[in-house]
Amino acid sequence: MTGLTADVVVVGAGLIGLATAWRLAADGIQVTVCDPTPGTQTSTVAAGMLAPVTEVEYGEDDLLALNLASVAAWPSFAAELQDAAGVPAGLHQTGTLAVAYDVDDAAALRRLADYQRRLGLEVEELSGRESRQREPMLAQGVSGGVWVPGDHSVDNRQAVTALLRAVEVSGVTLIRERVARVITSGTTAVGVQLENGDSIHAGQVIGAAGPWSGQLDGVPQELRPPVRPVKGEVLRLRVPEAYRPALTHTVRATARGFSVYLVPRPGGELVVGATSTELGYDTRVLAGGVFALLRDARTVLPITDELELVEAIAGLRPATPDNAPVLGPSGLDGLLWATGHYRNGVLLTPITAQIIAETVRTGVLPELGKPFLAGRFTAR
Amino acid sequence: MTGLTADVVVVGAGLIGLATAWRLAADGIQVTVCDPTPGTQTSTVAAGMLAPVTEVEYGEDDLLALNLASVAAWPSFAAELQDAAGVPAGLHQTGTLAVAYDVDDAAALRRLADYQRRLGLEVEELSGRESRQREPMLAQGVSGGVWVPGDHSVDNRQAVTALLRAVEVSGVTLIRERVARVITSGTTAVGVQLENGDSIHAGQVIGAAGPWSGQLDGVPQELRPPVRPVKGEVLRLRVPEAYRPALTHTVRATARGFSVYLVPRPGGELVVGATSTELGYDTRVLAGGVFALLRDARTVLPITDELELVEAIAGLRPATPDNAPVLGPSGLDGLLWATGHYRNGVLLTPITAQIIAETVRTGVLPELGKPFLAGRFTAR
Repeated sequence: MTGLTADVVVVGAGLIGLATAWRLAADGIQVTVCDPTPGTQTSTVAAGMLAPVTEVEYGEDDLLALNLASVAAWPSFAAELQDAAGVPAGLHQTGTLAVAYDVDDAAALRRLADYQRRLGLEVEELSGRESRQREPMLAQGVSGGVWVPGDHSVDNRQAVTALLRAVEVSGVTLIRERVARVITSGTTAVGVQLENGDSIHAGQVIGAAGPWSGQLDGVPQELRPPVRPVKGEVLRLRVPEAYRPALTHTVRATARGFSVYLVPRPGGELVVGATSTELGYDTRVLAGGVFALLRDARTVLPITDELELVEAIAGLRPATPDNAPVLGPSGLDGLLWATGHYRNGVLLTPITAQIIAETVRTGVLPELGKPFLAGRFTAR
Repeated sequence: MTGLTADVVVVGAGLIGLATAWRLAADGIQVTVCDPTPGTQTSTVAAGMLAPVTEVEYGEDDLLALNLASVAAWPSFAAELQDAAGVPAGLHQTGTLAVAYDVDDAAALRRLADYQRRLGLEVEELSGRESRQREPMLAQGVSGGVWVPGDHSVDNRQAVTALLRAVEVSGVTLIRERVARVITSGTTAVGVQLENGDSIHAGQVIGAAGPWSGQLDGVPQELRPPVRPVKGEVLRLRVPEAYRPALTHTVRATARGFSVYLVPRPGGELVVGATSTELGYDTRVLAGGVFALLRDARTVLPITDELELVEAIAGLRPATPDNAPVLGPSGLDGLLWATGHYRNGVLLTPITAQIIAETVRTGVLPELGKPFLAGRFTAR
């Protein structure tokens, strides 16, 4: 098995790595993806919100532009993926309702709506009553809302399944092994060595290992991206037939200062997320995390108490110092990054795959990707 | 396979059925136990408190006497079981600390302590500070406690495992099939028919099917015990090494009017229970149940937030109109009940097995069992 070759080898088979591999294969490029457990980590835990508007943060304009481009790219990406895979890609274009509970929550939501309008984003402020007209099961205590018609959601587990099928049918080689190190020749990456000792030689290596991307041996220390794991706990609830649909849109709530989101899926699943904890590579589900999610969910959606708790799971977001991803040239020839997507991995899957595929094809990082070069962290 | 025989056939392989079968086999009696899934229902979900004193209810004097007899029987029962099975029976004689959180909780606990003393039970009232001296991780807000040296706990999963081994080595036949009906001849039960069509003829049938005991076809409707399922949700948490032991005694708390108990196990498990819901034969774990348990546990034991949530599970208690079990002659010759143990199944396992075995041997229900005849429900 030793001495395999490929045009491109992708390290990591989460949504980002798989989508990039699929896009490259569509261009006729021979791609190998390596991951000990494809599609089982962060990509499977996520709730799948596509919320560039609802979750906009003050001063992150470049990231907002990237996020908006990606939410715009999702419908055609999903349609093509569905065609290629023969199974649903999981996109649900339902819009998102941001709601506030108490007076302080409402004030914060109004300030955010002002900012969203100044940015030219499409938002509509609602009273508590108007919010409940859109989502009748919301608590009486919900005091106001903002309707965001362009923020949607993706069933990320369906997307993972579809991408695994799509890469298979498009001729991508998937190797279920961990990459031990990147192989270099001088200042150029020329492939990877697997934990089983095999090596794969490739003209291009793509680092898409999410929170593990900073640990790739063979990459000089100073060129490794400053990606750290931020744990998020997520619950999956089941709405009994009698109460369906408990929600018809994604609900993003601020309840007594705490943030929670509730993402309904067709079929009765309701995903509740997410905590945020910096505890290293620890994916234990803690009682305090589950408590906080349930407390906030039931504050805004009292019927939560009557829903079955089907799953409590934790994943690791790949966070960076400025909350934005790391895309494109790494400083080591032959190695591109597609990592550091933090809270926006599902959202940024189509645009990341497109940017990286174009970079491989043309040798030039597209304009949209330029603010996200790894070099920005060492430059300052 | 059709046409099996036994001296005694036991319907149900929970703790009660298994312990009774084991006791009978020790007397040289040939026993067959039938259960589609031995030891997997309520007996596995329970937290395993042995709390006749801590959980005494006003006016349940006969039940208290039975409970006290059984907690006294546990040590020798456990020792014999351990000998027979070669694995631990799970008894932990650690004592129990009942604690109160706010002023109302403290007042209720004091009233209960007065009642316990009037009954001659051994209890010691403690201040909040004294309670924290015994359990240093209790919340500062714990305002008082009652130390109950005679209330203990059993790792019910270990007890189930031990009993399954013990019945095997003592020659009991375990058939993994559901009993479809009791076979009668005139007004006498003479065996059971299994769902697979096989029948087992036996001189004595023992109904130990917990919450399903009222559904035994073949038993005349008016003789079926009024047992109903009361769902209880239980959490299993894991204490990380750094925080062990989070607790060293069983803690029974009243927190802002809500009851919760926390049962520590050697090895870092902490069992938190239990909700109480009347929803029929429904074992879904509801979000509201998990929320309530976490809310109350973290109120009295703040470190709860930092513990891993390993399992959330629900079981069905076999409840009766007066909260006491149904023991002994059923009104149908040849059929004895050993069911309806509600919240006290683990506690009452030794005394129930002893009472039923003696009844089979002598034909006479011992004095201690007489208040618990099924006939008490039809008589009034």
